[in-house]
Amino acid sequence: MKKADIGLIGLAVMGENLVMNMESKGFTVAVFNRTTQKVDDFVNGRAKGKNIIGTHSLEELVSCLEKPRKVFMMVKAGNAVDNMIERLLPILEDGDIIIDGGNSHFPDTIRRTAYVESKGKLYVGTGVSGGEEGALKGPSMMPGGSPEAWQYVKPIFQSICAKVEDGSACCDWVGENGAGHFVKMVHNGIEYGDMQLICEAYQLMRDILGMSDDEMHEVFAQWNKTELDSYLIEITRDILAYKDTDGEPIVEKILDTAGQKGTGKWTGIAALDEGVPLTLIGEAVFSRCLSAMKDERVIAAKAYDRKIPAFTGDKAEMIEAIRKALYASKIISYAQGYTLMRTAAKTYGWNLNYGGIALMWRGGCIIRSVFLGKIKEAYDNNPQLENLLLDPYFKGVIESLVPAWRKVAAAAVTYGVPAPAMTAALSYFDGYTTERLPANLLQAQRDYFGAHTYERLDSPRGEFFHTNWTGRGGNTAASTYSV
Amino acid sequence: MKKADIGLIGLAVMGENLVMNMESKGFTVAVFNRTTQKVDDFVNGRAKGKNIIGTHSLEELVSCLEKPRKVFMMVKAGNAVDNMIERLLPILEDGDIIIDGGNSHFPDTIRRTAYVESKGKLYVGTGVSGGEEGALKGPSMMPGGSPEAWQYVKPIFQSICAKVEDGSACCDWVGENGAGHFVKMVHNGIEYGDMQLICEAYQLMRDILGMSDDEMHEVFAQWNKTELDSYLIEITRDILAYKDTDGEPIVEKILDTAGQKGTGKWTGIAALDEGVPLTLIGEAVFSRCLSAMKDERVIAAKAYDRKIPAFTGDKAEMIEAIRKALYASKIISYAQGYTLMRTAAKTYGWNLNYGGIALMWRGGCIIRSVFLGKIKEAYDNNPQLENLLLDPYFKGVIESLVPAWRKVAAAAVTYGVPAPAMTAALSYFDGYTTERLPANLLQAQRDYFGAHTYERLDSPRGEFFHTNWTGRGGNTAASTYSV
Repeated sequence: MKKADIGLIGLAVMGENLVMNMESKGFTVAVFNRTTQKVDDFVNGRAKGKNIIGTHSLEELVSCLEKPRKVFMMVKAGNAVDNMIERLLPILEDGDIIIDGGNSHFPDTIRRTAYVESKGKLYVGTGVSGGEEGALKGPSMMPGGSPEAWQYVKPIFQSICAKVEDGSACCDWVGENGAGHFVKMVHNGIEYGDMQLICEAYQLMRDILGMSDDEMHEVFAQWNKTELDSYLIEITRDILAYKDTDGEPIVEKILDTAGQKGTGKWTGIAALDEGVPLTLIGEAVFSRCLSAMKDERVIAAKAYDRKIPAFTGDKAEMIEAIRKALYASKIISYAQGYTLMRTAAKTYGWNLNYGGIALMWRGGCIIRSVFLGKIKEAYDNNPQLENLLLDPYFKGVIESLVPAWRKVAAAAVTYGVPAPAMTAALSYFDGYTTERLPANLLQAQRDYFGAHTYERLDSPRGEFFHTNWTGRGGNTAASTYSV
Repeated sequence: MKKADIGLIGLAVMGENLVMNMESKGFTVAVFNRTTQKVDDFVNGRAKGKNIIGTHSLEELVSCLEKPRKVFMMVKAGNAVDNMIERLLPILEDGDIIIDGGNSHFPDTIRRTAYVESKGKLYVGTGVSGGEEGALKGPSMMPGGSPEAWQYVKPIFQSICAKVEDGSACCDWVGENGAGHFVKMVHNGIEYGDMQLICEAYQLMRDILGMSDDEMHEVFAQWNKTELDSYLIEITRDILAYKDTDGEPIVEKILDTAGQKGTGKWTGIAALDEGVPLTLIGEAVFSRCLSAMKDERVIAAKAYDRKIPAFTGDKAEMIEAIRKALYASKIISYAQGYTLMRTAAKTYGWNLNYGGIALMWRGGCIIRSVFLGKIKEAYDNNPQLENLLLDPYFKGVIESLVPAWRKVAAAAVTYGVPAPAMTAALSYFDGYTTERLPANLLQAQRDYFGAHTYERLDSPRGEFFHTNWTGRGGNTAASTYSV
């Protein structure tokens, strides 16, 4: 019997679809699932007649594989991954490759790479995005881990992944140890941001402009023909048109409490740890938290009984302004996300290819968009670009959007319809392009109450001053104990 | 020789001042410092002729103490605390008390309490706020840890701590293990928020209204006679009047890059972990990060060359509106901070006294204010209050402030002067008081691309639905693998 090119563990929807995808590209795939009935159901169902080998034990799975063996785990992130690694290590040989395609937290992947390498095997932690359909037809893949492993998994990964118009694969080597899962985490954070921005646009149109779902469907259909052309705009268009059995839009019957799986939260924590202002994604994560406080919101809405004033402006003009605000905010979100990746790359010693990352996200994944092609160009033009806002193309775009963006933000705060991500993005833009922020006052306060010292505009950086503001404090600067 | 009531380790400015404070209240204090020259300098200097005993080893320190011994560590948070605990445990007796008065991270205090208790000793992790002057004259103290320890440290802590007008001590037992340090952490996060709000008010007046520091000094002096009466407003008033040797306001010569010591970051991470929307403090932390990107900001400011339009409205009216926006935003910040404490209390099994916490913060600490008296009243009236915004007093206040708050937020986004905390606070208010947020669309998106399922408004909670949006996807819901 022909040996399999790769083995896959975990036959939930994503795992099954990845197997079907690999097989369709000419690879033979051995599969295993903890509940072995799933293996039989799959082999006798969707996989029937395909080059897919069902196995009923890890030993059997491993025995079916070409060397160096490639074992792709699609199991729940967390302890299940560690447990599976422990079970695989004794039955694999040196040089075999364990692949984690789940949403593992990057510090875990850093740890696991070192551990698996210490046992003589190779490790790959890869982000896989695109949902169930992406897994089947071509996901975006962001692999990192043991560099020696890349040559062996590359042919498979670059066959099954999404392709852009010119045929480029939406998968390339990201970097050592946890780099792939870090980039996938930032991808997910950006996904949170993109979704939040669309939701804000929807709420502004619904609650300020009083638009119906059919009207908004038309608007998103139009927007998808502009610079906003993207998967999330496209599915929003389709969702708004989808009718329930009674002919009413189904979206209006869905409970407005958003779930989350933690990767957005991780992105926010990474930003706090790295000291990178990731305000838009932060607001997107917190907005999901606020949405989950549904019972309290119902009480508060009743207590405050706010009324949204009737809209008095030009409706078409406001719709276009909302589109521009969404686009500008989206640029900010990616600028912030890329700053996070640049900063983390320094912390963890990764040599990231920023244009390559944009290409990986360009197709296959949830955030795929035409826009990412422009980001790729920006980083191809200047791989050391400090911030997307300093790229000449995006600078021109932002400047053309600013007036409409300000108008929408002003409308949101004036009418009382929350647009936290759009306004946070504008605050960031205004702060980023301000030479003098009020942190001088803040430093004075810190020196006043905690003797934290400050630097001066007219003295070299690194020279610290302390003022005895009250005439009462001592001259001791706070060195050991800090408030 | 008389035994000492308490021993203190770590003679930086906070430690020294706490010793002077304790001695002034009639306690005899033994002191130790790693660099013993500091002990001698202190004993022969500020401590001369006082009931303060210098010691040159931990053994000597411990031998000077009344039983049960109370050893107060004022050492740098982190490993230094663990190391000191390891050195103290063998030379202490069962029932002795180790106190950590530094800014330790609450999970460390949870861990250390269990560890020290397992060795037969008691542990107290106490927040201490008020800076160097507070330490000397009466800090706010937030102790948690081993409940049995409270009876022994209470007389000392409640003697040295700040008092409010009626004599109540700004120190009470917070709760078990890490509760004290958790509450201190939230205090620090709120401090970040309060400082950021003052900075935004300053920048709006400076950059939109073109006001001088002398004018702003007058404004803060006036504000300090209103509901905003607080330590931070007071020192801002004084800072704005403080002149450099050349007669110019010194604050304008300070470099606008804010430092941070990590407790604000911890608060943000705790909020993300608990799923609590802590948007204002989040923006305050991120604003410090953005301020630190000074070189990039200078480049971006030059590239974009934005001009703030000339102000055309009524100046006095706008100043008052800024005051109201600051006040409203501050209420939001405390509402968010209290929600974080309520949520964490459930997670960690703490029985927090929310009115008592407001009282602890009412005096002595950096965020002390008249306002905290109102918060105490709100929680005294209803200890189970779900959100400060649902308290009748604060509801009335907020409603009176909303029009001015909207006006200021609109001015900030229109003129292009960043007020990220004030606008984030308004977005939160608008979201919290909105019955239907757009998370229904977000849930539809998640179900579309990831089969995450959703709940319906017309079905009981806990009943999940999946729509085959495209007609192409399968009926498999995402249970194992989640995007």
